[in-house]
Amino acid sequence: MTSEQHAAAERIAASFAKQGLMATLGASLGAVAPGKVEIILIPGPAVSQQHGFVHAGAVSAIADSAAGYAALSLMPPGRGVLTTEFKINLVAPAAGDRIIARGEVVKAGRTLTLAQAKVFAEASGQEKLVALLTATLMAIEGREGVND
Amino acid sequence: MTSEQHAAAERIAASFAKQGLMATLGASLGAVAPGKVEIILIPGPAVSQQHGFVHAGAVSAIADSAAGYAALSLMPPGRGVLTTEFKINLVAPAAGDRIIARGEVVKAGRTLTLAQAKVFAEASGQEKLVALLTATLMAIEGREGVND
Amino acid sequence: MTSEQHAAAERIAASFAKQGLMATLGASLGAVAPGKVEIILIPGPAVSQQHGFVHAGAVSAIADSAAGYAALSLMPPGRGVLTTEFKINLVAPAAGDRIIARGEVVKAGRTLTLAQAKVFAEASGQEKLVALLTATLMAIEGREGVND
Amino acid sequence: MTSEQHAAAERIAASFAKQGLMATLGASLGAVAPGKVEIILIPGPAVSQQHGFVHAGAVSAIADSAAGYAALSLMPPGRGVLTTEFKINLVAPAAGDRIIARGEVVKAGRTLTLAQAKVFAEASGQEKLVALLTATLMAIEGREGVND
Repeated sequence: MTSEQHAAAERIAASFAKQGLMATLGASLGAVAPGKVEIILIPGPAVSQQHGFVHAGAVSAIADSAAGYAALSLMPPGRGVLTTEFKINLVAPAAGDRIIARGEVVKAGRTLTLAQAKVFAEASGQEKLVALLTATLMAIEGREGVND
Repeated sequence: MTSEQHAAAERIAASFAKQGLMATLGASLGAVAPGKVEIILIPGPAVSQQHGFVHAGAVSAIADSAAGYAALSLMPPGRGVLTTEFKINLVAPAAGDRIIARGEVVKAGRTLTLAQAKVFAEASGQEKLVALLTATLMAIEGREGVND
Repeated sequence: MTSEQHAAAERIAASFAKQGLMATLGASLGAVAPGKVEIILIPGPAVSQQHGFVHAGAVSAIADSAAGYAALSLMPPGRGVLTTEFKINLVAPAAGDRIIARGEVVKAGRTLTLAQAKVFAEASGQEKLVALLTATLMAIEGREGVND
Repeated sequence: MTSEQHAAAERIAASFAKQGLMATLGASLGAVAPGKVEIILIPGPAVSQQHGFVHAGAVSAIADSAAGYAALSLMPPGRGVLTTEFKINLVAPAAGDRIIARGEVVKAGRTLTLAQAKVFAEASGQEKLVALLTATLMAIEGREGVND
């Protein structure tokens, strides 16, 4: 890991720690690399919908954060990102031992960045795709209270 | 309220109570009518992103539930719904006294229902649109563990 | 109609005439008002998919243009718009005498505008919803060759 | 190429020939493989928007068809597909010598298939990503007039 990569990882970790929702959901930060960020959620009653699967909103929350942090990992210091829109397709019920969202930048732009997150359910060591999210992130600079 | 409407409202309330995520987020059920359901969230550190606004994932969670319950409110008893996809546009930071998601059915179909949710931030008694979600809900019948 | 509305209508009409695709599809401009624009398409073999319905791509094209022009109708002169993303739900096969896309601005912003288009199929004088599109339009200024 | 692959390619080609819109746009079928289909469009005034770029509607049309045919290529004979929704992010103006949409199945399901299409602009032999589409395709069987 270069010192630049190390700095990016620290920046993401510091921002992640400020996302109260992630703590509330019990989500944790996984692997971080330039343009790629992983977030992990443990299924359970606290994040369920009415049939006991992980709620689409909880799946979306970690997928959106993974995509957003993938975008942030490529931003110069002092620039933050805000999600302007995302779409998620839920292709299988989210259940298992762990839910893993893997965000990745598709196209980094000056104002808008397109990122994607694939969400997998891991059960008995096997991964299965449960959702696919595409998000537009807007770079924000010099807006009070908005950075990283 | 007709007895049919009353039954629909009770059905939604019972299902909502089983969505562990809603309790975790501190969300509550608002007005329920055939094809229309309201869900309310109180902003705070527990549902925040890194800048202190309500996290897009939390906004999405209540908007998805509001749209899904709007769809469910028109389904015959014994039929459940699952979200197959949704898209959300976040047009303003979600902050204020209350965040209100208002779900509404756009087109009810045999297999697929299209629903929409508008999300408003209420501050000092004024409402402001912060997000718009469109979702596809799939009707599910006779799948074990999936109803309402 | 105020002279301002008249100017907006002329601006949209001039831009529409430059969209080669609209002529290729045989689409025509309908009613234009501030924040609202209508585009009409006649079903037929030239715009069909393999089952004889109007192709989702043709439905999307008029819906995207209707949403984009709704956004443009609220922009100051000299500013153009580009679609950065859209999502469309196709809720019924598009067939009939006329397909009518009605674009409308949901939220006008400095950089990004959110617009929506409902698409109706008209048959024997009856209208039926066939599609719903939501689009993000980006305001463009001072980029060579991009205006209106 | 196995005889099965050959049959799939012939099936896609026959269906493509029935999509009047593709001929109207001047689009042609490229490489076809199980779960993957390519469609090519030549930029020009007939498919342009007001600034001379390829219209988002034309980009969407070939991307939607590429995704739909990727889904169809995995369907048993006698089953057709209909697009129920798609979302497209337009990340760069579509211009150049050729626009190439490459559709690919992400998850094939009994009722719903999720497919994606990446759209590239080729100029001077170089390819550049211009759009990303994700689509839900619904399998249709035994509905009159709907096959392949």
